[in-house]
Amino acid sequence: MRKSMSRFIIAFTTIFIILFRSKPASAATHEHKWEVEYAFKSPDCYRKLAITINGQYPGPTIAARQGDAVVVTVRNGLLTENVAIHWHGIRQYGTPWMDGTAGVTQCPILPGESFVYRFVVERAGTYLYHAHYGIQRQAGLYGMIEVSLPMGESEPFSYDFDRSIILADWYHANTYEQFVALSSVPFVWIGDPSSILIQGRGKFKCSTPGMEPELCNATSPECVPHVLTVVAGKTYRIRIGSLTSLAALSFEIEGHNMTVVEADGHYVEPMTVKNLFIYSGEAYSVLVTADQDASRNYWTTAKIVSFESSTPQGLAIFNYYPNRPLRNPPTTPPIGPRWDDAEARSAQSSAVKALAGYAYPPPRKADRRIVMLNTQNTIDGHVRWAINNVSLTFPQTPYLIAYKENFRRAFNRTPPPDDYDFGNYDIYAVAGNPNATENDGVYRLKFNSTVDVVLQNANTLNPNTSETHPWHLHGHDFWVLGYGSGEFDRVKDPKKYNLLNPIKKNTVAVQPYSWTALRFTADNPGVWAFHCHIEPHFLAGMAVIFEEGVEKVGKLPSSIMGCGLTKGYPKP
Amino acid sequence: MRKSMSRFIIAFTTIFIILFRSKPASAATHEHKWEVEYAFKSPDCYRKLAITINGQYPGPTIAARQGDAVVVTVRNGLLTENVAIHWHGIRQYGTPWMDGTAGVTQCPILPGESFVYRFVVERAGTYLYHAHYGIQRQAGLYGMIEVSLPMGESEPFSYDFDRSIILADWYHANTYEQFVALSSVPFVWIGDPSSILIQGRGKFKCSTPGMEPELCNATSPECVPHVLTVVAGKTYRIRIGSLTSLAALSFEIEGHNMTVVEADGHYVEPMTVKNLFIYSGEAYSVLVTADQDASRNYWTTAKIVSFESSTPQGLAIFNYYPNRPLRNPPTTPPIGPRWDDAEARSAQSSAVKALAGYAYPPPRKADRRIVMLNTQNTIDGHVRWAINNVSLTFPQTPYLIAYKENFRRAFNRTPPPDDYDFGNYDIYAVAGNPNATENDGVYRLKFNSTVDVVLQNANTLNPNTSETHPWHLHGHDFWVLGYGSGEFDRVKDPKKYNLLNPIKKNTVAVQPYSWTALRFTADNPGVWAFHCHIEPHFLAGMAVIFEEGVEKVGKLPSSIMGCGLTKGYPKP
Repeated sequence: MRKSMSRFIIAFTTIFIILFRSKPASAATHEHKWEVEYAFKSPDCYRKLAITINGQYPGPTIAARQGDAVVVTVRNGLLTENVAIHWHGIRQYGTPWMDGTAGVTQCPILPGESFVYRFVVERAGTYLYHAHYGIQRQAGLYGMIEVSLPMGESEPFSYDFDRSIILADWYHANTYEQFVALSSVPFVWIGDPSSILIQGRGKFKCSTPGMEPELCNATSPECVPHVLTVVAGKTYRIRIGSLTSLAALSFEIEGHNMTVVEADGHYVEPMTVKNLFIYSGEAYSVLVTADQDASRNYWTTAKIVSFESSTPQGLAIFNYYPNRPLRNPPTTPPIGPRWDDAEARSAQSSAVKALAGYAYPPPRKADRRIVMLNTQNTIDGHVRWAINNVSLTFPQTPYLIAYKENFRRAFNRTPPPDDYDFGNYDIYAVAGNPNATENDGVYRLKFNSTVDVVLQNANTLNPNTSETHPWHLHGHDFWVLGYGSGEFDRVKDPKKYNLLNPIKKNTVAVQPYSWTALRFTADNPGVWAFHCHIEPHFLAGMAVIFEEGVEKVGKLPSSIMGCGLTKGYPKP
Repeated sequence: MRKSMSRFIIAFTTIFIILFRSKPASAATHEHKWEVEYAFKSPDCYRKLAITINGQYPGPTIAARQGDAVVVTVRNGLLTENVAIHWHGIRQYGTPWMDGTAGVTQCPILPGESFVYRFVVERAGTYLYHAHYGIQRQAGLYGMIEVSLPMGESEPFSYDFDRSIILADWYHANTYEQFVALSSVPFVWIGDPSSILIQGRGKFKCSTPGMEPELCNATSPECVPHVLTVVAGKTYRIRIGSLTSLAALSFEIEGHNMTVVEADGHYVEPMTVKNLFIYSGEAYSVLVTADQDASRNYWTTAKIVSFESSTPQGLAIFNYYPNRPLRNPPTTPPIGPRWDDAEARSAQSSAVKALAGYAYPPPRKADRRIVMLNTQNTIDGHVRWAINNVSLTFPQTPYLIAYKENFRRAFNRTPPPDDYDFGNYDIYAVAGNPNATENDGVYRLKFNSTVDVVLQNANTLNPNTSETHPWHLHGHDFWVLGYGSGEFDRVKDPKKYNLLNPIKKNTVAVQPYSWTALRFTADNPGVWAFHCHIEPHFLAGMAVIFEEGVEKVGKLPSSIMGCGLTKGYPKP
């Protein structure tokens, strides 16, 4: 009797632990079934194939509450092409194999197969999801994740309505054509985007000579501008995410100020701006009050600012109810900031601070500093992007699996360098970098250690040219300790770090010929990519891999396997 | 001493068996390293991506001698797309896992991975290779396999030179666009080919309105016509293979007779023709003597004959040395036979007989007869092609692996039907076929049994329309016992079978509203596809699967795994 009672208690306790381990009793599970397929879309009036989810482009928004579980069954309905989906900004504590990064945390999902992504959204805020394989993101496979606070809690700001907008740039050349161009010798650049899309809608000039009417139809309902309808006097939280392939954008609502209140899932000190600079991979919430002349509509614009471009800015309509939604504003759209005013961009980045009372400061000191020189290099005749002259290539067996299963020859076990030869390197010069290599080594971080990363931007292969790179870290948020122009001073600059109220983010830009300093705690067991979020840069090697505490990672599911050294049978 | 001696003998015998098991001591091994990549090509002057091998389209020719081993290391250099290559006409005795049929004999090869195909070419003749995944073949991934006789042996015909030509049709729409069209509801047909290519060269009309000069360049060196240069008085063996996506062709050399001497690797009674009808998946050798006025060149033409088409015929030049290779013949190209003269096509097919003294007759009787009704059906709103109202879908785990590893739920273990309701079916009517299904069942054949297959063609979903279907059998050659128009008479028609000198082939056509009867011996342990060689028909289910003696198949290599139920670790 006593024995069966104790058995009952053990069983009950086990069930209790399983059920309530990682989320409160009230947490819900959100199940989604996604069919990933090509479909013809005309988001800018030009008809081409996009990768869609359940026929939609952009993909459906995932809405959940903090602590909820999200279960997405992705069926790959492409004919010959694999896929993988990354949950951008979701840190995947305890589920590093669900990060969706092909080559790092999983093998890609094969055509016809289904993969179940299952993870907990552990913090309220605005996040993104997108393809993380090849350059499929730019084919349109992306969407937003909106995580609300637990029932009964409220944000430290108030608004009447919650809206969202995804910004993107759009190319008429498909991913295969772009890959062939970018990997060719001599190198062929993909050029300017064909158009800028605001919530999946843009306008390509169909009157371009030689454009066939069945290919480009200016009256297609698919390319009617996006309309955000507002009621006078009300305040709107607008979640803005950028999933551009290439461009940094300036986003603006004609005649209306925006107050930035959230960045990448973290509250920030309210900051009022006329235009928001936003980099690929970033997500912001801004508050906008409909406080202008309500008898008319206003332009919403998205303009390329990271390079000089012939691409017209994207246009949407900020519509005061009950005006006709598509009634054109009586004004010319604002032309936005100059593309080459990098100072304005740096100033805005620097002005964003963590909201007092809602953030904890970073550790005072780092255990390790990795300085990452951002360059363009020529390796074996190919143009590549590199960090400290190492251009990342992916091994056939994903890193996470290789570590856990001790496939020692799956990738190069020699780590890449923690710095470059900064005494002798001229970041303003076109550098030959003859020792640049393609490699698949990993930065191994001591578990729970504090790591500083300094992104050091430099000249490209073209004279007097340095790019803007938005860097995204998987599995973590980092504190942004500082920005500076020129070369990072290893003695003086750390003394100027903001250790008081730095923002936390998962994506941050480094400006031309400048540096950006980050700090994070290596507290998430797994293997994580850190990379430039520009598709062609990432494709061409502008990424590094961090490993931390991989020995603490649980048993890997066989569903992530099938590539490299993992062709066979699940372990019994 | 005696013990070590016997060990030595055992070891020596083992080595001897391993070395000389399947090929004579003189057999060579031909190693090829192939990089499969997209590249821009302009085979008909229009610039588009083609799948190339080592940059080449069509792919390189594999040349070997009977009994040799061929080892092809295929590296998939596509960015996100898998691949598999089938060795068309090579029977793969003892190596059924090397057949290269994704979903049947292997998982596809992932991007970045290398797969080693290793097989013996056990019989002299003309064979083909091509992609066997999705509809990648039509993107250009194909080439020829030329197997010569063992040293010292010679063909039962004589010639001075050996040449080869691959015929293809070519679409400007890519495989993704075609797949989206074909799988859409309502169904969208891919339309006529953009051009016909003779040895990878054709001519699209770049003066079409709206065609941009950088997209279509009539003066591109890539679309200069193929030239076959001959010396007066000499005789040429021309190996002709068709790898069209859709079209059956008539091939002709102006003013020159062709004598057919080989079909699909088997000698045939010499048959002289003015034009050769050739179906996708077929390979012939013809002898052509340069016996005409040598002061001029002649047209070589390839014309679509299986449907009425606006596609201009393909043109090449039959050049008498020393005339300028590209000098146009002074004549108008021959217009070829009428497309709707199916009788001429049937007559030519029926006239081909096995060469006496080089063939053995089929078994007198079959152990089993499977009649296969060829139809177009609507299933769940999609247009599909079906056999006995079953439209094949592929399971995630390839059949060969599922059988060998006894994954019982990998596919439907109920076999498809051996016949249709022929008493009540009108092959001339548009039939609703409401019981049509998509299924992945298998015809299991008794090992070493004799099997008859009767392909029964019927009406499509359009009134008064019946198509031409070239059927290809993997792993075997079959005897072609007979052809007939109308519905196969199960009592009378078998009595008319040619059991005396039927040809053996691996591909044969069934004409509109007609039947074709085949016989083969199920003597090759493995799982084998039998399917219509038209890419969109195969894609839409026009295929069946045969299994025979799978229990005799040896240990499968882990390299063929990684999909479906085989994600994990090779068995120890």
